[in-house]
Formats: sequence, C-alpha cells, structure tokens
Amino acid sequence: MLGMARAHPHLLRAHFDPNYIVRADALRPGKVGVLSGGGSGHEPMHGGFVGAGMLDAACPGRIFTSPTPDQIEAACHAIHSGAGILFIVKNYTGDILNFDIAAELCRANGIDVATLLIHDDVAVQDSLYTAGRRGVGITVFAEKICGAAAEAGAPLDRVAAIGRKVGQQGRSMGMALTSCIVPAVGRPTFVLKEDEMEIGVGIHGEPGRERMALQTADEITDILAATIFDDLPFRRGSRVIAMVNGMGGTPLIELYIIFRRLARLCDDRNITISRNLVGNYVTSLEMAGCSITLLEADDELLHLWDAPVHTAALHW
Amino acid sequence: MLGMARAHPHLLRAHFDPNYIVRADALRPGKVGVLSGGGSGHEPMHGGFVGAGMLDAACPGRIFTSPTPDQIEAACHAIHSGAGILFIVKNYTGDILNFDIAAELCRANGIDVATLLIHDDVAVQDSLYTAGRRGVGITVFAEKICGAAAEAGAPLDRVAAIGRKVGQQGRSMGMALTSCIVPAVGRPTFVLKEDEMEIGVGIHGEPGRERMALQTADEITDILAATIFDDLPFRRGSRVIAMVNGMGGTPLIELYIIFRRLARLCDDRNITISRNLVGNYVTSLEMAGCSITLLEADDELLHLWDAPVHTAALHW
Repeated sequence: MLGMARAHPHLLRAHFDPNYIVRADALRPGKVGVLSGGGSGHEPMHGGFVGAGMLDAACPGRIFTSPTPDQIEAACHAIHSGAGILFIVKNYTGDILNFDIAAELCRANGIDVATLLIHDDVAVQDSLYTAGRRGVGITVFAEKICGAAAEAGAPLDRVAAIGRKVGQQGRSMGMALTSCIVPAVGRPTFVLKEDEMEIGVGIHGEPGRERMALQTADEITDILAATIFDDLPFRRGSRVIAMVNGMGGTPLIELYIIFRRLARLCDDRNITISRNLVGNYVTSLEMAGCSITLLEADDELLHLWDAPVHTAALHW
Repeated sequence: MLGMARAHPHLLRAHFDPNYIVRADALRPGKVGVLSGGGSGHEPMHGGFVGAGMLDAACPGRIFTSPTPDQIEAACHAIHSGAGILFIVKNYTGDILNFDIAAELCRANGIDVATLLIHDDVAVQDSLYTAGRRGVGITVFAEKICGAAAEAGAPLDRVAAIGRKVGQQGRSMGMALTSCIVPAVGRPTFVLKEDEMEIGVGIHGEPGRERMALQTADEITDILAATIFDDLPFRRGSRVIAMVNGMGGTPLIELYIIFRRLARLCDDRNITISRNLVGNYVTSLEMAGCSITLLEADDELLHLWDAPVHTAALHW
C-alpha cells in the first residue's frame, strides 16, 4: 500500500491504521462515493482502480482476507460528501459480513449506503468461502461503470441500479495450471500435476468444476467460453465487453492467444466484442491461469465504459 | 500477434509472412520511423509499445529468437515516410546481426537507417548470447523517449542522439526466483532450489552474477539498487525515471513492495524519483523475478517522457 502511494502520488493516498486507499483529488460535494475492498493478493484489484472515474476508496484486507468493518467505516468517512456511498462487494461470506457491519455503522452516522453484490463466476454454485456464486472479473467492470455513473452525477439509487445491470448481464469463469502460495501458509493451496489443470478455479484457489488433463490454449478457451455463453445466455447479435484476465503467473503472450480464440468464437456466434481488456486485472498472487469475463453491453453501459478513467491500472 | 491485432484494432495492425506489427494510424510524411524487435516471450515488449508517440513498428521473432532481416526490412518499407528509420536493438548477437543485415538492405533501397544499441544490464560484462552488456529495461525508456522525439518532428540524427543519451544514463539489473519454460524446449532453462535466487539473471534465463540464498524483498532491492546506483554512478541531487519490472510470474503486490524500498533508498541518497513504472514491461514468459531500471533524466528527457503516448501497454 505504501509502494502504491509512492508510485502514484497524483492518483491516490494511503491511510494506515486502519488501512485504506483514497483518491488524491479533492472530493466533489454531492458526488456518490464508490468504494470496494477485499483480501489483498488480487492486485491491481482494488487499489489499482482508485482514481478519477472509478473508485473513490479501496479497503485492502490481509492476503485473501476480508477487510474489517472499521477499515471500511473509516474510508467512508474519508470519502463521504453527502450523496451516499455504494459498496461493491464480491460474494464471499467474510466480505459480506464485514461490509454489512460497516454499512450499519455508517447509517448510524447518517451516511446513506447501498451495496452491490458481485457473483458472476459460473463455475460452481457454492464454494469454499461462498454461498451462491463467487464474485470475480465482473467486479472490474462494475467498478469502472459505477464509477463513471457516479462521476457523471447519478444519484445513489441510480448508480446501484446500473451496477445491478452489470451484475445481471455479466459472467466469468477461470482455470489454473498451478496454485499460488499464500505467504502466511507457506505451501501451495492445492497441487496439480504437471499435466493437469483445474477448470473453474476460484481466485483464492477454491476448487472448480473439474480437474482434467492439460489441453491447448484453444481448447481451454473453448471450454471456458462455451460455459459462459450458455449461462446468461449471450444472444446472437449482442455486443459485449470482454476481458481475458491473467491470474498473476501467466505470460501476456498467452493471454493474447486466448483472446484470439475468444474473438473467433464470438465471431462464430455473431457476438461483437465492442471493447476488451487483456492483462492482469484480478489476480491470485502468482497463480498460473486465466479467466474470461463477458458483459452484454447496451449503449448506456458502453457509454459509461468509454468515460475517462485515470487510475493506476486503467487509464483512458 | 493475431490476438494483439484483434484486441487493439485502433492502435496496431499485424502483418503475416513476414511477421510485423505497425501503427494503425496513417504515416506522417517526414516523420522519422522508430522500429524495434526481438524474440517473443518478453511481452508487452515490443508489440505493446506500438502506437502514437512510441514505436511505428515491432518485429517479433519466435520465442527468445531474433527476428529475421526480411521481417525487419518489410516493416521498414511499411513505415518509411522519407525521413529515415531508427532501429532500437537490444545487445544480443543474433539481434545485432539481423538488424545489421536489414539496415544494409534498407540502405540499398534508399532508406536511411540509424541503429541504437541498448546495453544497460549491469549484472555481467559478457553473457550467453552477448558480447558486452545485455539490453533489458532501458529499451522501454528508449522506445518511449525516441518515439516522443520522432513524433515531435526531430530528424533521424537527433532522435538517435537522444536515444544514445538514454542509453548512457540508464542502468538495470534483475533477479529470478524461478526459471521459465521455453515451449519448444519443454523444460526449465535453469533450476533453482526453493530457497535460492539468481541475482543478475538475464531475460532469457542467462546466468547472473551470483546464486545465493533467498532473501527478503527489502534485501533483494538493496542488492539490485546498490549495484545500479554505483555503476553510473547516480549522483546525489539527480532526478531519475525508475522502473520496477516484473519478469512475468511475480505478483504486482510484490513489485510495489520492491518499489517502496527503492523509493526509500533513493530518498537516502537524495535522488528524486520524478516518474516511475511498476508492472510487467519486459518479461521472460512466466519467470518469477523482477528487475530495477533507473534513468538519470534531465529536463529534455522528462519532457519527452511526459509527451502523450497511446499504446497497448503505455498510455498517457
């Protein structure tokens, strides 16, 4: 967090005890605040998304551990400017609990809070730390789009409604070739043989749908994309924002290979990739693997996606 | 390359047989062309740096293999607009040979070519594929700064002279915790025990200065930075552009930890980090490790650094 603050002094400020990151530029009275947070180890999420047009604050917990309510509450006081705050919360039991407590503390202090729950991972219904689907890649899209809506002056209920639309229209799935090692644990979270992969893995190494023999990048893309396409389902003629996300230990050249195949699969289904991200956005420390996220995007969502953003990890 | 072209149609175009990547926007008559290339596996270098204000063309070879003269020559014909072309070449024997042949072929066709050789790696004097020092992180700085000078209308000899200044005032060093696996080889390039690291490793897994017991992030930073500081040497009161670069398999959170320490070491020496990059810019497939690059920057270099750039990997 100190490193981020030193690297990006024009974008963000770090506060310690309790820990949170806030935008460096001044608050605009009447602008809805947009706040997210979660365990560390997923960088650039969330601190790398703090800045103009995206998050006002991020609350990092310890590695793969939820932030505490006092962190979240303190960050709210730092960014509150009278129009309320949207919490963007990934669906993990600890995160929900702590954000809920923070929301109650804020409301008791007269701060209006709405919560947007992200649960876009189509791999499994319930997981190690989750009732329902896990929240993964769509978090990036929700933070960008809700951030743009707030920047444009939308009131809290409208920013939250746009976020819910993103959640309803977005789906993700991931896979891993290796596990990461959580420093405090000191050994891999799971062990795959050299010729195995885990399809549908979670961003904390939670088990996926199936452990299977390693396949080519094209075959892996086919598996992930088919599951995602069928889940919403994504319709012929629709436009999407697509992300091919690296889990932290995957070379960028491989992510572009995955994107190439995904683009062809979309062509085959007459789905237009209107915008895209290819890179490391929601990582799992040094895990080798990737995920695909698709968001069916109408004019409103594309317009908010295209709005200027100035953060460490997204900038246009 | 196809994936990059699909992901960034507004920035770049891919040409196949021979393979090269060029800017998507129209050539400006009289603008010096800036071209680089080298083995693949180092992404986003070089294709991710093609676009307005940086490279006009990139020529990717196979993984860790030099591009061929016919690739380079074809790319030159595609970007030549009458003012000559600067080749930015990392100091590896194969690259030098093939860029030299391409330069002769171009000159025989009336295209003026100048070559900027990058050899910033302070780790070792000669290496596996290199006579003299290897070219690594400063390549990114040279491509940005020479690209800005060319965009601003500087003639070829001036763009080359600015590039030489970058080379003279820049130094890098890297380290690795694990090797990558070159796909065509199928086994790690080198093997480190779990509690070992290679200090001064090259971006193709070439041996470094010393294999030693694993140390903390702060201690690793101290070793790399001290070697770099002393080599130029970087003087008290100077301003630098600093890069903490991931080798492909290192979590971003760890790169920020390295940057935090580097910033403190610079404070101690009264060296001001005026600009910085923290992320994966010159990778070695999925190698776990990092490198530090420092460039002593005067007003001219900072001005060119700050000039607008619009590429897949750098954008401001």
